[in-house]
Amino acid sequence: MTDTQIHAAFYRGDRRFDVAQKPAPAPGPGQVALRIAFCGICGTDMHVFHGNMDARVGFERIIGHEMSGTVEALGAGVEGFTKGQKVVVRPLDHCGDCPACDAGHTHICHNLKFLGLDTDGAMQEVWNVPAHTLHALPDDMRLDHAALIEPVAVACHDVRMADLTAGEDVVVIGGGPIGVLVAMVAREAGGKVVISEVNENRLAIAADMGFDVVNPAKSDLVAEIGNRTGGKGADVVFEVSGSQPGVDAMTDVAATRGRICMVAIHAKKPQVDMFRFFWRELQLIGARVYEAADYDKAIALVASGAIAADKVITDVSPLAEIQRAFEQLDASPTALKSLIKVGA
Amino acid sequence: MTDTQIHAAFYRGDRRFDVAQKPAPAPGPGQVALRIAFCGICGTDMHVFHGNMDARVGFERIIGHEMSGTVEALGAGVEGFTKGQKVVVRPLDHCGDCPACDAGHTHICHNLKFLGLDTDGAMQEVWNVPAHTLHALPDDMRLDHAALIEPVAVACHDVRMADLTAGEDVVVIGGGPIGVLVAMVAREAGGKVVISEVNENRLAIAADMGFDVVNPAKSDLVAEIGNRTGGKGADVVFEVSGSQPGVDAMTDVAATRGRICMVAIHAKKPQVDMFRFFWRELQLIGARVYEAADYDKAIALVASGAIAADKVITDVSPLAEIQRAFEQLDASPTALKSLIKVGA
Repeated sequence: MTDTQIHAAFYRGDRRFDVAQKPAPAPGPGQVALRIAFCGICGTDMHVFHGNMDARVGFERIIGHEMSGTVEALGAGVEGFTKGQKVVVRPLDHCGDCPACDAGHTHICHNLKFLGLDTDGAMQEVWNVPAHTLHALPDDMRLDHAALIEPVAVACHDVRMADLTAGEDVVVIGGGPIGVLVAMVAREAGGKVVISEVNENRLAIAADMGFDVVNPAKSDLVAEIGNRTGGKGADVVFEVSGSQPGVDAMTDVAATRGRICMVAIHAKKPQVDMFRFFWRELQLIGARVYEAADYDKAIALVASGAIAADKVITDVSPLAEIQRAFEQLDASPTALKSLIKVGA
Repeated sequence: MTDTQIHAAFYRGDRRFDVAQKPAPAPGPGQVALRIAFCGICGTDMHVFHGNMDARVGFERIIGHEMSGTVEALGAGVEGFTKGQKVVVRPLDHCGDCPACDAGHTHICHNLKFLGLDTDGAMQEVWNVPAHTLHALPDDMRLDHAALIEPVAVACHDVRMADLTAGEDVVVIGGGPIGVLVAMVAREAGGKVVISEVNENRLAIAADMGFDVVNPAKSDLVAEIGNRTGGKGADVVFEVSGSQPGVDAMTDVAATRGRICMVAIHAKKPQVDMFRFFWRELQLIGARVYEAADYDKAIALVASGAIAADKVITDVSPLAEIQRAFEQLDASPTALKSLIKVGA
């Protein structure tokens, strides 16, 4: 396979991708070569596109990590997979020698390599990855749907970290792609979910998915949640907005002893109502990426149809049109998840 | 007892107490009359003295809640206590009919009456309280030491809420009276405790109590904790300072998946490193007052000598000198806990 030429999309900086041919190296020891079927565009990929991560990714990087594919070839020492088998990658490579790894939290290793950012990723026809990152899929799973497993696993991790139990009142602050997936996973876990979102297009999409929605710019979110819960508030809140108003709302809508799961990336330090944490004995739970159990759960949820995959996937473009796909997603008020069809 | 006259200290506003006589009413149904031995001056009492809580307490209030005493008389329907028995009061009276009470969190009832703030308190020779607030003491417990049980119960609640286990690395940010008690309870639970405090007098007191101390204004707290923990950081952090630098430090010193217990009252919303909560999967746990189990633990710790009561109690003044005692505590750089000897 060493001499095989494949197509790949290279990030060149300044909101530009080049699709070009490159050789596909044979998988090294402990690696598996995958033939990529689909790769979703993550919010992080959009940050790369915007030039915010140039220092990390450089200008020769093949990005992409929300992928699905099939096994193409096994490197030396790899067992347990067969050519053609459907798989997804949990794109985390840990060091094994830091305090987080020592404590068993390898998914948030202090020297974590995130595949598709710190290494080349899935926006190429053949991708070599460490075998330990693979999760096998059911034979009958659609590979476009399977490209949602990575973001669904994020949502599964968030819901698990929040220790959500059936019957609890849940508010998801922020109705973008991750917010909607968190809401779906929370609903599947038995939560009574309300999505708070200021973008009317996103509100309409969430409502179409069967969620109760509130626009906090137009109505009083705290009063609304109070009315729905007999004055109690939300047992579990997911802060997915990354905004100061979202951080204000998270403490205001939470019930006494409520759990607030911090899903969003806050680049700036927001002001947080620490008095409310004290007064109501609130808990804040940071949650990042996923562990193996979250992937297992995500695969099961996508397989069962609990994730409305056809509503979440709003666009599919061929690899050759990756430039247009990023530009279109960046400008769209209604898109949720755009997939790149990488394979032929 | 209705006609008996007792001495009481009335808060009159503007940093002034009057000690005067008043009648001691007989205990009502469900109440117990207590003869007060000692009553500590809490930080909240100092807030009252400063005039910051006038709207809540008014100008005829007898404050005080960190008390010890003996049973004087039982009201109708009260059983299980005998005259002369040593007791302390858990000064929380809940409504029984709010979402927090419904969920079993009566200690943070939404309509909580805090005895000695929302009702008259223990800075009087005889105090009538609801029988459900009483905890019996061992016969041989010193009543001056017993006046520490309320603040020790705060510390027990904090340590319990933080789920501290033996061998964990602990940082207590703030070495005032509550910080020192949290450190003592954490140490008794097997924690390896470092106290961070900027006041050199308080640092010296904490060091004298056998604690490792760091002045973050003079040395690099994060580096110091890193050195002590092999780069891991603190498994448990108690934020007791109520300051922005304390809030900055709490996220910086915490280990991956570390638990940060919010003990302090932050009147203003500080800026909080939400990214760090996400990135390191930190948890923040609000903890307020105490529950019955915390009182049981506090009584056991004071009885066992695990609390260095004679070092914590830095002053004892008679009720007649309450004015001087508040002024002196307010001005002292070295005082920790001042007690008022209320009884004869």
